[in-house]
This record gives sequence, structure tokens and C-alpha cells, in this order.
Amino acid sequence: MKIAITGKGGVGKTTLSALLSHIYSTEGKGVIAVDADPDANLAAALGVSREELASIRPIADLPELIEERTGVKPGTPGGIFKLNPKVDDIPEGFGYSIGNITLLVMGKSRSAASGCYCPESALLRRLLKHLIVERDEVVIVDMEAGIEHLTRGTSEGVDGFIVVVEPGQRSVQTAQTVMRLAGELGVQKIFAVANKVRNEEDIAFIKDALEGIDLLGSISFNTDIMEADVKGLPSYMSSDTVVDEARKIKGNLEGRV
Amino acid sequence: MKIAITGKGGVGKTTLSALLSHIYSTEGKGVIAVDADPDANLAAALGVSREELASIRPIADLPELIEERTGVKPGTPGGIFKLNPKVDDIPEGFGYSIGNITLLVMGKSRSAASGCYCPESALLRRLLKHLIVERDEVVIVDMEAGIEHLTRGTSEGVDGFIVVVEPGQRSVQTAQTVMRLAGELGVQKIFAVANKVRNEEDIAFIKDALEGIDLLGSISFNTDIMEADVKGLPSYMSSDTVVDEARKIKGNLEGRV
Repeated sequence: MKIAITGKGGVGKTTLSALLSHIYSTEGKGVIAVDADPDANLAAALGVSREELASIRPIADLPELIEERTGVKPGTPGGIFKLNPKVDDIPEGFGYSIGNITLLVMGKSRSAASGCYCPESALLRRLLKHLIVERDEVVIVDMEAGIEHLTRGTSEGVDGFIVVVEPGQRSVQTAQTVMRLAGELGVQKIFAVANKVRNEEDIAFIKDALEGIDLLGSISFNTDIMEADVKGLPSYMSSDTVVDEARKIKGNLEGRV
Repeated sequence: MKIAITGKGGVGKTTLSALLSHIYSTEGKGVIAVDADPDANLAAALGVSREELASIRPIADLPELIEERTGVKPGTPGGIFKLNPKVDDIPEGFGYSIGNITLLVMGKSRSAASGCYCPESALLRRLLKHLIVERDEVVIVDMEAGIEHLTRGTSEGVDGFIVVVEPGQRSVQTAQTVMRLAGELGVQKIFAVANKVRNEEDIAFIKDALEGIDLLGSISFNTDIMEADVKGLPSYMSSDTVVDEARKIKGNLEGRV
């Protein structure tokens, strides 16, 4: 099962990614959880402590690795680098283990040309392709709204592309943009999950705004998730309701694919 | 007054940007409101209707303008472009007027090399510098967490660099990263605004986590802002409390600079 989760900043992508990673891991499955959003913090949502967080180095911040694999030192202008660098040992070598979950933090190129056609991006794109197309584990990718690093060849391997939406025009607009981009990239199975839902009207609003979308389920509005974040607790410890709702979403996803 | 507003996705940067733009405009001041976060939607928060939204083309999506000003067609690989393109007529020519407010939507390069050292980025960087360093209007920039397009020369012109934070480890971690990046860029006056605050404990948590930060004020947790977003209303119409809190924040900022 390969799941990519996206949506506007703050809608709860990371919370859902952490919940699904937790649920699969409690079933004894190997999970690779990928933090592919430089503005997210999947590690914290998975319960990694503040002290340990500091020890996790994102892949994009490993210049030696990038140079070794792509043949080009990050920041070198105009270098010609290998487009197919070796990446299959990266999860084991550079992942952070939390029980059955291997966390990989992608990070962001620090060069002025961030997100550019640079060796960091080449390595990250190849790594994501490897994870989605070549691995046996459950892979859950917490992506930014811009679906960076996702290429056509990779997107076809995604079993569930989930757009998280909250009741609000702005979140819906981002969802529409992301869905269009994903469609252009050849993603077949696009689903939505409604988060911060207060009542039936909120669900109706989202269904109406994202006409025809396959809604996998919803997570109720509650301040427990906020509270867990304040206390530095993992998302799955926020409340039983939330975990149950995520379990339903997982069941519905599996029923669809 | 030149204000840059940043913070983790979903913390309320756009809401604060819209509120401050509204408050300055009701004082009869000319305001340039800049949407510099591809994942934000400042237009909606300023009350632009869904139908009108579709007519606003981001600067990065104007290939004719980019080619005319930089000398290079977007997407051309390795072109040599003007680093100092003419931009001073862009607010008038390409902004969207809402009363005294001129809205400029920066957008994002659509090329594979998004955010890259490309003509789009050169134009956006120069435009932001012009707005912050050379204009007389109040300028309010809704930035993404990565402070893209901000360069050393521009950052020195910023009177108030405001990091919006909500009670939660993840928002605080992003705030710390952004504050470090801003400091490295030479931004002198870094402030915080606490959003979604439920009680005194939430404020204490934020003060404690961002030790020594100059907190300009806070906006209370309420579902009115969410409700306004669902209904497509501008942020300033969400509730009087919210506008009053934003007015206090503005007063405190002016007292500091």
C-alpha cells in the first residue's frame, strides 16, 4: 500500500500521515513514513521527542551522501549529475526507527535555487520513486501542497492519493489545484478526507465544493489533537475517537483499491 | 510601514495579513497586500469572490511580462536574464484593487525547476525589493514559511517581521527555523503573534517555547474565522473581537518601530 497525503498547510496532513503510519505498524506491517513537506514535522507527530528531533538530519542536508550518489556537490552550478543514483539503501541507512516505522525526512535544498533542478532534488525524486514503485513496505508520504518530487513514473505507483480538506474556501481551493496537478501527472485514484468537521453541514460543504470527489471519511473537530501537539505527544495518543476515525478511513481506502 | 508575515502553514498568516490590510485601508492609507505564498489565498481572505478570483493571474503566470522584463522566456534553460528588471509599474498594471488595497499575487513558477534561479524568480525577487524598499504605501506581505524571494537587501527594509504561532510544538518549531533564517538574512525586528489562543496557558506555552521573543499580541481561538472562510466572507467580517485584537497588534507594532 502506497499512500500520498496532501492538502493546504495546516489542514492535518501530518496528523493523518502519523495516524495511518501508527495503525499499519500496530498490525505488524513494516511502514516507511516519509516527511516530504519542509513545513511539516512528521517526526513530532509520530512522537519523536524534541531532543531526538535535533539528531534527525534530512536527506537534503547530507551533502556527502548527495555528492557520493549523484556525483555532484550540492551548490555546484551547472553540474551534470547522475539521473539514476543508487537509493535503495537509504531507508535503512538514513531512516529513523520508531518501532516498525522507518521515518525518512526529505528536507529541502538549502541552495538559493531551492526546489531546483539540482543534485538534491534529483536524489529526492529518485528516492521517492524507489519507495513508491520498488518497496514492499507500506509507504506513507506526507507531501506539501505543491506535490513536489512526484513525477509521472512515480505517481502511477500511488495506490491512494489523499487530499485532506477542512471546511473552508481556502482549503478547498488548494485541494482543487492539487487534484488538477495530480490528475495531470497521471494519478488515478484521488480521494479526499475531511478534517476538523463539526457537523453534517461541514461535510455537505466539502462534498459540494469538491463535486464528485470520493470522500474516504472524516475526522471530527476537537481540541485533543491541538493539546497533544502542545504536550509533544504523538497524534495517536490525542484521543481514541481520532484513531477510530483514521481506522475507518484506512478501511475505506483499502476497500477502494 | 513594511510588514512581512510568516509562520507554519495553517497558523493564520493570511488571516492576519488580511486583517492588517483592512485596518490600514480603513485609515485611508494606500495598502499593497502581497500574496507571496503559493499555498495561501489572500484574495479570498480580503473578500474577493470566487468568480473574481479566477480572473486574478499571478505574476509568475504571466510569461509575456516575464519575458518582456527579464529578456528570457520562462522555461528556457540556462538563459542569461536581466537581474534588475523594471518592476515599478507592476502594482498599478497587474494589481487587483479592493478599495484602497492593491492586491498582488506572486504565484509560483510552474516550470519543473520551481523556485529555481529562473526569470520568474528574478522578477519576483526584484518586485518584492521594490515594494519593501522603494514604495510609500503600507506594504503587507503574506509569506510562506520558507521566506522565499526575500534577499538581504530587501530584508533590511522590513519594519516588522511577524511570525505567527499557534499553541503547538510543530508551529513553534517552524517559527524557530524561520526566525533563524530571517536573522541570517539580516532582519532586525522579529516579532511574534499568537493565534488560536484559548487561555493564558497557551500564551505562556508560546512565550516559553520562543524564549525572549517580542510578542505583539494574540488572537483568540474562535470558530468565527473558520465560519467566515466557509461562507467566503473576508476575515475582517468574521467577528469584532478578531478585528479588535488585530488592531491592538498593529498598535503594538507601531509602538516598537
